Amino acid sequence: MAPCIILHSPQLGENIGSVARVMLNFGLADLRLVAPRDGWPNPAADPLAAGAFEAGVAVTVFDTAEAAIADLQLVLAATARPRGMEKPVVDAIGGAELVQSRGQRAGVLFGGESSGLPSDVVGLADAIMTYPVNPAFASLNLAQAAGVFCASWGAVQGRQGRFEGTNEGVGEPAPREDLIRMFEHLEDELERAGYFHPPDKTPLMKTNIRNGFIRGNWTLQEVRTFRGAIKALAIGRGKARTQRED
Amino acid sequence: MAPCIILHSPQLGENIGSVARVMLNFGLADLRLVAPRDGWPNPAADPLAAGAFEAGVAVTVFDTAEAAIADLQLVLAATARPRGMEKPVVDAIGGAELVQSRGQRAGVLFGGESSGLPSDVVGLADAIMTYPVNPAFASLNLAQAAGVFCASWGAVQGRQGRFEGTNEGVGEPAPREDLIRMFEHLEDELERAGYFHPPDKTPLMKTNIRNGFIRGNWTLQEVRTFRGAIKALAIGRGKARTQRED
Repeated sequence: MAPCIILHSPQLGENIGSVARVMLNFGLADLRLVAPRDGWPNPAADPLAAGAFEAGVAVTVFDTAEAAIADLQLVLAATARPRGMEKPVVDAIGGAELVQSRGQRAGVLFGGESSGLPSDVVGLADAIMTYPVNPAFASLNLAQAAGVFCASWGAVQGRQGRFEGTNEGVGEPAPREDLIRMFEHLEDELERAGYFHPPDKTPLMKTNIRNGFIRGNWTLQEVRTFRGAIKALAIGRGKARTQRED
Repeated sequence: MAPCIILHSPQLGENIGSVARVMLNFGLADLRLVAPRDGWPNPAADPLAAGAFEAGVAVTVFDTAEAAIADLQLVLAATARPRGMEKPVVDAIGGAELVQSRGQRAGVLFGGESSGLPSDVVGLADAIMTYPVNPAFASLNLAQAAGVFCASWGAVQGRQGRFEGTNEGVGEPAPREDLIRMFEHLEDELERAGYFHPPDKTPLMKTNIRNGFIRGNWTLQEVRTFRGAIKALAIGRGKARTQRED
């Protein structure tokens, strides 16, 4: 179940709009505001939301953090500063995994632009979520901070199709036979062009050229395309046009 | 080595500033702009950058994507749309792990606000990076898109080396600049040979040929060898022997 995002004392409508947009980008739709400085609704939020409110993000306003989390079973507090509190600490992926694995009504609390979450609000959370930031430049924009969690939630949801090796999205490599025929075609033409010289270096030159091609895991279509290219180069303009028809 | 972030045709200075801030939050400092709509420097970037430029983010402006990636060895293209290209696909964590494990000069390309990355620019990349987004609300804000990668980079730094696939036994990949020159050389010769036909299919044919080569992570030596081969094929026996001496 997707968690809600709770912004505690947010100041800028622009940030609220940006949070709504990135929430919906990654499938979250329950946005809760605790005591927004400029009230709600706030027209400054709309341009940055890019239609997220109309497309499904529901906003609810609360007076206190306690009220905003009343119905939740699992609460994370996002904070960069150490709090000296005895709570588990997770990063963004760890937080998303925790929410996912518990299957409970969960929420993630983010503090306002000027001062972050008050300690008593952090104290209401089950766990602290913190990102490994550059200590010399640690202050994230509020919408970016929420976006990092939302993207991690999306990544955890999408993990079935997650990156495994490297060939996802790439077609089947051509059978080695076709690659070898391509090499022989290329090498024949290079031979005819007088490229292999001196003779005792020829095997090494061939191996060097083959290695680069083999590493590319060419598909059969790529092999065919490139054989057409070899033919064109070897034969030259006029004949190439005729040959290409075959 | 932290990768650079490359924004292709960015429009809003605000987004450029936001990208700089979130980069530095997670330890990235090399920001490259390709043809920014409003030029550079852009005063609209400063409030959102929150001091990131003064604190270490260096901005360089380029006319073309080719120039912006010339010195890189590994290039990721962030895109939400499937491109029908034969390239590996990674998510944000997968992309950060790839950069980390290769230990190469790497960059991540992001498209501008209105239309994302053009296909020919995606074609220059080694891999496509895509996030598992809500298909009903898939368009991320540019700064959020960059932020998701930067946070993933930070998360991967915060762990210890995990990646399995290595390039053991293979030399350093050639800088992208040398690969691009090799493509241009090959394409010029193919053009002269009348290979590209019909004209409206030419960009796709070029991208298909480039993709296979890019996947091979060719070393500089392999690039040089193959340029000699192109030359030999194009020029033919007698002249090839002369040319090879240079």
